[in-house]
Amino acid sequence: MNKKELRIIDKIENLEKKGAKLSNTQKILLATDGSVTTILDVLVGEIKIKTLKQEFQEADSDIAKLLSIDEGEIVNYRVVVMFNDNSPLIYATSYIPIKRLTSEFKKDLISADIPIGRILRKYNIESRREIQTVKIEKNPKDELKNIFKTNANFLSRDYHIIHNDEILIWIEEKFPIDSFLKNYKN
Amino acid sequence: MNKKELRIIDKIENLEKKGAKLSNTQKILLATDGSVTTILDVLVGEIKIKTLKQEFQEADSDIAKLLSIDEGEIVNYRVVVMFNDNSPLIYATSYIPIKRLTSEFKKDLISADIPIGRILRKYNIESRREIQTVKIEKNPKDELKNIFKTNANFLSRDYHIIHNDEILIWIEEKFPIDSFLKNYKN
Repeated sequence: MNKKELRIIDKIENLEKKGAKLSNTQKILLATDGSVTTILDVLVGEIKIKTLKQEFQEADSDIAKLLSIDEGEIVNYRVVVMFNDNSPLIYATSYIPIKRLTSEFKKDLISADIPIGRILRKYNIESRREIQTVKIEKNPKDELKNIFKTNANFLSRDYHIIHNDEILIWIEEKFPIDSFLKNYKN
Repeated sequence: MNKKELRIIDKIENLEKKGAKLSNTQKILLATDGSVTTILDVLVGEIKIKTLKQEFQEADSDIAKLLSIDEGEIVNYRVVVMFNDNSPLIYATSYIPIKRLTSEFKKDLISADIPIGRILRKYNIESRREIQTVKIEKNPKDELKNIFKTNANFLSRDYHIIHNDEILIWIEEKFPIDSFLKNYKN
């Protein structure tokens, strides 16, 4: 096992040592390097997304560092909720450096509520995902509490989708720690 | 949702219509386009593999078709068991056209018991996985029954790992239908 993988396992084990009892599904959603959309689709039926925010920004120093680009370069910033039957499943934030996008990818990103996993699949994009951080968020902001109608802590991870040896997308995903504990469609 | 994804969801729903009651973990292991090694690692701790067979062959017409190569081209054929604490988890068969491999990838494939997911990660290979078939295998061969010490049916899927727009690897994975029903490490 190489260092990258050990870090993910270690981080998930550390969450459990801190008292978080995670279900298999929660662990997989935090650790997988595959499409989260595909996993949710088979668990709960075809999921949809609602775009809460979607805009172009100049990268500040933090975003530039996150994406390995220069400050001031244009990025797409998107906040979405993945949901099924009106129930929110995962809250996801993404930053994408525009210069690394094809025009067709950009069009889908802007114009329609399509999950990024499905856009990658639609255009047969070869990539790899590098999980960066996995953590418990103890004081989630009001927006999260309101969307998920919960006061629970949130599980959170962020990762890079690498394409052509460059960071194509930075994504952060969050869900309440009391979600994905049981089988759906029992 | 595009047609490729619909097919996977449909196939898994079809298995359930036929009476197979699948756990979340089973569904994810059948549907994911990410590394199965990574998923098993977080579920049961670091997994290992035992190589049962490992040889070079000339592709017959079936294998040539499977890999989109010419008959007679050399392929690596490998059969492994992924296991943890001496318990078998998944039985996996793979075919790889040698001409599409780097020498370092080939060396790891031949010389050590390394899961393919870890080799891809080690060399930062960008790829995508296309699930082909998902099914129940009702009369598993004796080798499977002996390894898993079960008379149960097996769940099975096969998929391509695509790299540089070519099939780099064909993989088939199987596990007993009574595996992955419960949480590990409860």
